Amino acid sequence: MRILLVGASGTIGQKITEALASEHVVLRAGRNGADVSVDITSPESIASMYEEIGRVDAVINASGGANFKTVPELTPELNEKGIESKLKGQINLVLLGQEYVNDGGSFTLTTGVMMDDPIPMGASAAMANGGVKAFVKAASIEIPRGIRINSVSPNIVEESWSRLGGFFAGFDPVPAARVARAYVKSVEGAQTGQNYKVY
Amino acid sequence: MRILLVGASGTIGQKITEALASEHVVLRAGRNGADVSVDITSPESIASMYEEIGRVDAVINASGGANFKTVPELTPELNEKGIESKLKGQINLVLLGQEYVNDGGSFTLTTGVMMDDPIPMGASAAMANGGVKAFVKAASIEIPRGIRINSVSPNIVEESWSRLGGFFAGFDPVPAARVARAYVKSVEGAQTGQNYKVY
Ligand SMILES: NC(=O)c1ccc[n+]([C@@H]2O[C@H](COP(=O)([O-])OP(=O)(O)OC[C@H]3O[C@@H](n4cnc5c(N)ncnc54)[C@H](OP(=O)(O)O)[C@@H]3O)[C@@H](O)[C@H]2O)c1
Ligand SMILES: NC(=O)c1ccc[n+]([C@@H]2O[C@H](COP(=O)([O-])OP(=O)(O)OC[C@H]3O[C@@H](n4cnc5c(N)ncnc54)[C@H](OP(=O)(O)O)[C@@H]3O)[C@@H](O)[C@H]2O)c1
Repeated sequence: MRILLVGASGTIGQKITEALASEHVVLRAGRNGADVSVDITSPESIASMYEEIGRVDAVINASGGANFKTVPELTPELNEKGIESKLKGQINLVLLGQEYVNDGGSFTLTTGVMMDDPIPMGASAAMANGGVKAFVKAASIEIPRGIRINSVSPNIVEESWSRLGGFFAGFDPVPAARVARAYVKSVEGAQTGQNYKVY
Repeated sequence: MRILLVGASGTIGQKITEALASEHVVLRAGRNGADVSVDITSPESIASMYEEIGRVDAVINASGGANFKTVPELTPELNEKGIESKLKGQINLVLLGQEYVNDGGSFTLTTGVMMDDPIPMGASAAMANGGVKAFVKAASIEIPRGIRINSVSPNIVEESWSRLGGFFAGFDPVPAARVARAYVKSVEGAQTGQNYKVY
């Protein structure tokens, strides 16, 4: 398969690349993408990326952020990062990309454990995750031409523990390579409308 | 209690008003609100509303919309209504209102059955519902001063069936008065972080 991977250079994206590259052609995207550049917060940038790469069998996104703030600190402005990046960035990859995905192809987006097991300062990211999960489930019943759509919900990964573990007291981190297997399941399997929890 | 109800004139809002008005003071808000006007798609309008009404014991929102479009028809632009109204409108009522809610008070937002039981053309609304539900769960663990936050997820209501039933083939509509009871549970009860499904 020809697979577009947005966020290929990231902690999780690198492990997804490793898991897929021997069997498939992986197009590595990101703001500084090795094969194609895209900023998912810009619909114009997403549209140019698809224009440039043409048709693919699968689109995976492993990028997208949100601000970490307590609820009293969170303002409408600070909440915008989660809205523009993790939420709309991912959904626009689907809306603008659906015509570029071959019949029977797939989209795989990324949510995260914080929506199920909340942490302090996690409300904005949880909002984005919950929106993506519900969109995936709803879109799966009517996206045409046998295209499938799933999301992967990673736990905090071991490789990010030294940077982010302070936010995740008592969580049991998982190897990013284990998270990558859920993306492989989504791309090579036959399920749709799922949110694969890796925890 | 002094309760702010955004969307008081709506199908569900009217029944919430009826359920609360004998025991509480209900401030009825909406774009053409009987007591105070607000457009939840505008943070400035939300801020002026709170400025005008001052402190309350509870904030309920029963307003907010999204476009009904199939996934192939849905564009980033058409998805904006759900983002600005049903998602950000509700979350900004919390972010901008938290200082106006008395200790031990509450917020109650509105999601909907479509995120759990998807319907055609429902992906944008489902996205907004899922975002609100996850935000509520995450915000509940750290919103200060004993303030509680819940959402109510109504089924399609009998009163909307003639207008909307065509979208909800085979659903079993519930009376709006039954939906209103879940808002009463959120306001007068002691739970937090919940999404009360009325189906
Ligand atoms: N790490 C964890 O423990 C963990 C746990 C749960 C969920 N997640 C989620 O998993 C996803 C990936 O996390 P990660 O830790 O692997 O991230 P990461 O190491 O920070 O990598 C982010 C990747 O996304 C790209 N990127 C960032 N902003 C972008 C944008 N606006 N447009 C396009 N590409 C962009 C980056 O490349 P460029 O800099 O070249 O753009 C990079 O390839 C995120 O959604 C994160 O929330 C991570
Ligand atoms: N009806 C159902 O079967 C059903 C099922 C599941 C979920 N829901 C959800 O429940 C909520 C209420 O539904 P409903 O059927 O009762 O709605 P509705 O009858 O259309 O009433 C909407 C109410 O919200 C106010 N409103 C609309 N836009 C607003 C804005 N931008 N800012 C402030 N107020 C605004 C309206 O008053 P003004 O015109 O004065 O602004 C009105 O009071 C919505 O979120 C809906 O998605 C409804």
